[in-house]
Amino acid sequence: MPTIAVDAMGGDQAPEETVRGVADVSLQTDIDCLLVGDEDRIQAVLERVAYNPEQIAIRHCTETIASGDDPRESVRTRRDASLLVAIRAVAEERADAVVSAGNTGACILGAARHFRPLAGVRRAALAAVLPRRAQHPGQDPLALLLDAGATVHCDADELVRFAVMGSAYARRVSKVPAPRVGLLNMGGEPSKGGEVLVETHRRLAALPGLDFVGNVEGHELVTGRADVIVCEGLLGNVALKLFEGISEALVDLARAAAERKLVWRMGLRLLAQGVDSLQALTDYRRYGGAPILGFEQLLLTCHGRSDARAIANAVKVAAKAVRDRVPAEIAGALGGGWR
Amino acid sequence: MPTIAVDAMGGDQAPEETVRGVADVSLQTDIDCLLVGDEDRIQAVLERVAYNPEQIAIRHCTETIASGDDPRESVRTRRDASLLVAIRAVAEERADAVVSAGNTGACILGAARHFRPLAGVRRAALAAVLPRRAQHPGQDPLALLLDAGATVHCDADELVRFAVMGSAYARRVSKVPAPRVGLLNMGGEPSKGGEVLVETHRRLAALPGLDFVGNVEGHELVTGRADVIVCEGLLGNVALKLFEGISEALVDLARAAAERKLVWRMGLRLLAQGVDSLQALTDYRRYGGAPILGFEQLLLTCHGRSDARAIANAVKVAAKAVRDRVPAEIAGALGGGWR
Repeated sequence: MPTIAVDAMGGDQAPEETVRGVADVSLQTDIDCLLVGDEDRIQAVLERVAYNPEQIAIRHCTETIASGDDPRESVRTRRDASLLVAIRAVAEERADAVVSAGNTGACILGAARHFRPLAGVRRAALAAVLPRRAQHPGQDPLALLLDAGATVHCDADELVRFAVMGSAYARRVSKVPAPRVGLLNMGGEPSKGGEVLVETHRRLAALPGLDFVGNVEGHELVTGRADVIVCEGLLGNVALKLFEGISEALVDLARAAAERKLVWRMGLRLLAQGVDSLQALTDYRRYGGAPILGFEQLLLTCHGRSDARAIANAVKVAAKAVRDRVPAEIAGALGGGWR
Repeated sequence: MPTIAVDAMGGDQAPEETVRGVADVSLQTDIDCLLVGDEDRIQAVLERVAYNPEQIAIRHCTETIASGDDPRESVRTRRDASLLVAIRAVAEERADAVVSAGNTGACILGAARHFRPLAGVRRAALAAVLPRRAQHPGQDPLALLLDAGATVHCDADELVRFAVMGSAYARRVSKVPAPRVGLLNMGGEPSKGGEVLVETHRRLAALPGLDFVGNVEGHELVTGRADVIVCEGLLGNVALKLFEGISEALVDLARAAAERKLVWRMGLRLLAQGVDSLQALTDYRRYGGAPILGFEQLLLTCHGRSDARAIANAVKVAAKAVRDRVPAEIAGALGGGWR
């Protein structure tokens, strides 16, 4: 059974929700978890919930990195931060993968500092999962977007590697046998988007073993056209945050409307089933975390607002990825004569 | 009174909706319009609607450029296309501004071919209007995003010019005395986003006469934080299309839900008032077109799906921009010692 190191102190609702999520996992699965953080606070939560003590260990540490902290400075100076202790537990093979809802920048830098890069990978990518409208039954409702902000600009080499890594991850984790890969761009034609994207398009189209569907435009992020969407970090970060911003605005609008008038509240209730897919857009609990790709070890980042269900889902995805030997799959894809 | 040249054949519902829009303008305002396109088809629509013949002239031409046509090829070979004839009418001072819901790429190339660039402007910008949640009463519900795809990558010089042009346009057209300008980026800190954005941030912060609010992240496009948001075309195009894609997906979801079950349809009706602001997101009729900035003449582009109301709004915005001498305002801002 894999052991997942969980950054108990990472996230807006930590350690309450992180510990609850791990407690649930211990009852629902046979996954072992290592809860890393302030032991007293972790125990205080555990005392109030049901869990299987045989599957949960605690690794006490004193420091934390908050979501607003400077990632570089924090990773350099807070060696005993829960996130970094969890990362080192995996680097030193006392656990198999990390789950954290904490500071994403610190996750990336911490992984870069302690994990081993996969052969040939110069830069890691932060993946993000985006909900989308499925085009056919059985299709995974989530698409993988990378890079969502570990890089700023990328060259064609790096974008091609992101495509290979993302495709290998999706193949294992989302069980799409041949994930369709798209290149985020400002037009459908191969000539669009400037030198780097034109060159990336050319190379992806020529790559054996990759189902490249061509350029994907902004609005196609919402449709089921591609399972894996590749872009540089600046573009991916803006797209991801715009997506989140619109989702939040909609939920706020609906809530404000419902509070103002009884008829609106009734309307919202009647509509609730109908807009189920709309609400899913903003339901981070379903997402199960997004991986940092490019290392021999895995770290899954969760949204800062993750609750127990989100953490539990991420732990399950991490355990599945370990069992399915996802990093080896990615290394194989990278080494498989793709250059 | 200004004369607005309207590309009668541009848009998914042309010439029906373009002509209807112009007919409405002739009854509601004292704006003169020059309808450019197939005279027989234009007359056929005019025969069915009310309008003031003293304010509408027709300039017959034989060719059109469809939204799917290659912009470069079309602009090069179809000299008698309605869009290009309308642009030349303005270039030759037989009209004061152009409105088109046609092929956006052809609008940009046509303007570049026939209009005079403002002094010091190397590259034009395509602006887009984005709906947003107002933060205080009286705030314009639309923000201006530029460039939305006339360029691919930009240097700091170009981004600074976009900021100056967008700010001058918003000052006149949206009547915000001091529009707040933001730089679209992957983080709030001035050090984010790579060399070009760091340099642009530094220069915008030092620019007198510009209310620069710093970097704006993806989710802040939805809030009222900035009135004018500046970015390179690749980034702006992806953000704009993602925005449109999510809006369309929501409308489709609501419609599908309403069709499936009576309770959902009732719910939707009850909720209709409450989600008024949500529906506004997808209501292109309210937008009034988005300008191409960087020339001595003005061209307003409308969404391809524009109906009569959208066209009428764009014609009114164009007339207002001509009356308020917006290009001169922009030229003044560019020349006003901003470098």
